[in-house]
Amino acid sequence: MAHTLQAPTGLRDFYPADLLRRRYIEKLWRDTAIRHGFEEIDGPTFEHAELYKIKSGEGILNEMFGVFSGKDESQRAALAQGEAPYALRPEFTPTLARLYAAKAATLPKPCKWFWQQNCYRAEKPQRGRLREFMQWNCDVIGTENEPEAQARADAEVIGVSIALLALAGLQPERTSPGVTARICDRSIMQMWFASRGVPEVLMPLAFELRDRALKEPTERLHEVATRAGMGWDAQMSVLRARAIVVNAGAIKSHGPAVADVMDVSGFNLLDESLLSFGIDEWCRFDTTIARGLAYYTGMVFEVIAEGERAIAGGGRYDNLIELFGGPPTPAVGFGMGDVVLSLLLADKGLMPEGKDLLEALSAPAASFRPDAFVISNGTPEADAAVRPLVAKLRRGTESAAWLAKEGRKPWEAARYGSVGEDDPAARPVHARHTYKTTKNVGKLLKEASDQHARAAVIIESGEHATVRNLETREEQKDVPLNRVPGVIAGLVAG
Amino acid sequence: MAHTLQAPTGLRDFYPADLLRRRYIEKLWRDTAIRHGFEEIDGPTFEHAELYKIKSGEGILNEMFGVFSGKDESQRAALAQGEAPYALRPEFTPTLARLYAAKAATLPKPCKWFWQQNCYRAEKPQRGRLREFMQWNCDVIGTENEPEAQARADAEVIGVSIALLALAGLQPERTSPGVTARICDRSIMQMWFASRGVPEVLMPLAFELRDRALKEPTERLHEVATRAGMGWDAQMSVLRARAIVVNAGAIKSHGPAVADVMDVSGFNLLDESLLSFGIDEWCRFDTTIARGLAYYTGMVFEVIAEGERAIAGGGRYDNLIELFGGPPTPAVGFGMGDVVLSLLLADKGLMPEGKDLLEALSAPAASFRPDAFVISNGTPEADAAVRPLVAKLRRGTESAAWLAKEGRKPWEAARYGSVGEDDPAARPVHARHTYKTTKNVGKLLKEASDQHARAAVIIESGEHATVRNLETREEQKDVPLNRVPGVIAGLVAG
Repeated sequence: MAHTLQAPTGLRDFYPADLLRRRYIEKLWRDTAIRHGFEEIDGPTFEHAELYKIKSGEGILNEMFGVFSGKDESQRAALAQGEAPYALRPEFTPTLARLYAAKAATLPKPCKWFWQQNCYRAEKPQRGRLREFMQWNCDVIGTENEPEAQARADAEVIGVSIALLALAGLQPERTSPGVTARICDRSIMQMWFASRGVPEVLMPLAFELRDRALKEPTERLHEVATRAGMGWDAQMSVLRARAIVVNAGAIKSHGPAVADVMDVSGFNLLDESLLSFGIDEWCRFDTTIARGLAYYTGMVFEVIAEGERAIAGGGRYDNLIELFGGPPTPAVGFGMGDVVLSLLLADKGLMPEGKDLLEALSAPAASFRPDAFVISNGTPEADAAVRPLVAKLRRGTESAAWLAKEGRKPWEAARYGSVGEDDPAARPVHARHTYKTTKNVGKLLKEASDQHARAAVIIESGEHATVRNLETREEQKDVPLNRVPGVIAGLVAG
Repeated sequence: MAHTLQAPTGLRDFYPADLLRRRYIEKLWRDTAIRHGFEEIDGPTFEHAELYKIKSGEGILNEMFGVFSGKDESQRAALAQGEAPYALRPEFTPTLARLYAAKAATLPKPCKWFWQQNCYRAEKPQRGRLREFMQWNCDVIGTENEPEAQARADAEVIGVSIALLALAGLQPERTSPGVTARICDRSIMQMWFASRGVPEVLMPLAFELRDRALKEPTERLHEVATRAGMGWDAQMSVLRARAIVVNAGAIKSHGPAVADVMDVSGFNLLDESLLSFGIDEWCRFDTTIARGLAYYTGMVFEVIAEGERAIAGGGRYDNLIELFGGPPTPAVGFGMGDVVLSLLLADKGLMPEGKDLLEALSAPAASFRPDAFVISNGTPEADAAVRPLVAKLRRGTESAAWLAKEGRKPWEAARYGSVGEDDPAARPVHARHTYKTTKNVGKLLKEASDQHARAAVIIESGEHATVRNLETREEQKDVPLNRVPGVIAGLVAG
């Protein structure tokens, strides 16, 4: 009886104060995703167990919870072997791939989807790891095939994870013992491994070993590699190669000096996108990052706090949708759990309590309607200004940075109104831009209306824009770009 | 493969448009619960299977999904018998009882808890019934033992379910083919059954059969009763007694004329509370309502639309907390599922779509801080005015009724500001009152501050109140009670 009256090991009870803290994390997640133009989806809590055999990899398969209907006696023989017809979802990506593949032909391109619900893993509970935990996923699926479009999608996804950190009050690592997104690329890594004699068939093992090398003694990993038939030079490239860490924004100037280790010039396109999104100070290229999951094909990243704790991780998985029966589809995304993030925020005094928590939860949520849809007038200068402006609108980073500098907590933003170093700065809003190639302003204004945007921002040059209220048709012309966030904030406040 | 790539039978995929509709239901639920002073809790998605054997009854035990860790080989023999160590929650009440019992000594009295998450039942899927569905629970646990206090808690819980219906735009049945709360009481029913010869030991079966009599042919139920040894007179009282349906508010005038059937004068106290909460037009006493679950001990009710579809059900369960290891504790609550409610709202044109849906979801959520804490100055007239005023503040029914009369949809409220027949009427707010017996206004003002209320409303007579802004200490004196909602609305809007 005493045992029955406790939650199963590794699962949590949430009394009201606990639940409010969880809801705070969920609100940060949802508001950030919505402001970045992601739409929420969901699937079943449990799936056919075979769904996870398609691509989740041994690590996850060994930690699944089986599910069966007590009524269904036909399953008994399989159950006796430990085989269940269903499994609690250990991760969401297989469900996402199933949903996308089933309707690929009719879905918008790209699909920007987010998801935040529970996952379940039968691993040994420890600090930062539970058997039931929440996860936030953001994915961009079905971008154009051009390397530039994919680099922008990679940067957009990394940017969402960073916007969350900023909204929670965390700081980039360059300014304090803060957080960094550490970025690598499996296709670049693979070229390097191949040049050192890792055969194609051993590539998945090579990535797995490089990931494990961050956490396990190298001798054991050499043994695994030797047993698998990997040569010594190849092993050295996988397990012992000198780590290169380059600040984002510095790839071009870094030059070819280290091309004998891994060709970091391959990060050029992504570097440019990180710069244009204004998130370079949060990012580093780091050749030790490989990620454990089998399905990544290109960019991979981890968000790491204080040099050790992983808050989030993700990457590009261009082959996965096809494996689930869909067309070949480029895709990139990440997952962030609630457990490590909650511990980190509490440690840093960034989890509100009492009245602060009630106020933080009552603060206005992100609008489901886009507050602003940003359009270029078609000139190259205006084209180049779209993404930086959208990123600025979505993050409202001036406000977060100002609060931190003043020693204020992030949830005090509401009390101070729109604050910042630039005048006027503004709180984060829901901002979008087109992913289409058309330069026809009329068509783009129609897209803004179809998405029910409140305002269109038409960039007329690298420095000025017209802001049109799509409800009233009123226009403000010649608004300097750095004043657009303030104008949109005023329009949202009504 | 094709089979693997579909959601398991009876479980749902939610693409963005589907998820928005689900979030609309969730928003209606959460906003209503918070405005009524309920605090959210949560527990594990799966519990020790034995937890559900304590009191859930055969109906639910037969429809459970078993859960086990694929790693744990010690379970294989039990699994071969269809026995799993864990079960997906088929309902939340056992978890709630476990949580309350574990901390009964330190929890506030009463605890007003709500919960909205998924439940799982391995039943045959059909229209309105799925294997995974959302449920909203609101419970008041640990009220005083006096019959008056319990009748008020019963009415408060019924009132929350009705406030949800009103917020969604549904109408009471007297004005259209709408919805009604149908109320009975197992203790009154039990006295009637006992007087007709149903022995104590057969009471649980009597309630079960009376519940099933609403859906199944009576002949079969007579057979069950006969096999169990129930006499003919007793069977007639359970299965064939004439139904009495009395409008709420009419119990007193209904008189003892039908005391030969079931003594409806026992509903007197509850009837008074329903009247004082202003929800009598939504309620009927109906002697056919028994509810199926084993654990109810007093008031039971079902919310029924168009005379047939059950949207919600609940009742009093005064013995349950003790069964889970806690002290004897009066408790009352209900559950409402998302599936039937969604179908009903869609059928009635009350599920917003497109831009309306995005706006409805973006409308301000209920404040986690109480907007108003209502206090009596200690006179009997003021005492009597507290609950009616709190109920009015929480429901904002004038606004909903006005919109319906004008042929407007409920989500248009934001567009019309505060509207209503009374001037000024107001939108629903988060309102509370004390559950303590003290009449000391100073102590009650301290309770308001401790709960972080924005304003205190001190009722000075049956007709006037002082509204004190607890942030600025500003006071408005001699506010007529019917203008208090408008004053609070102004204060909330800032």
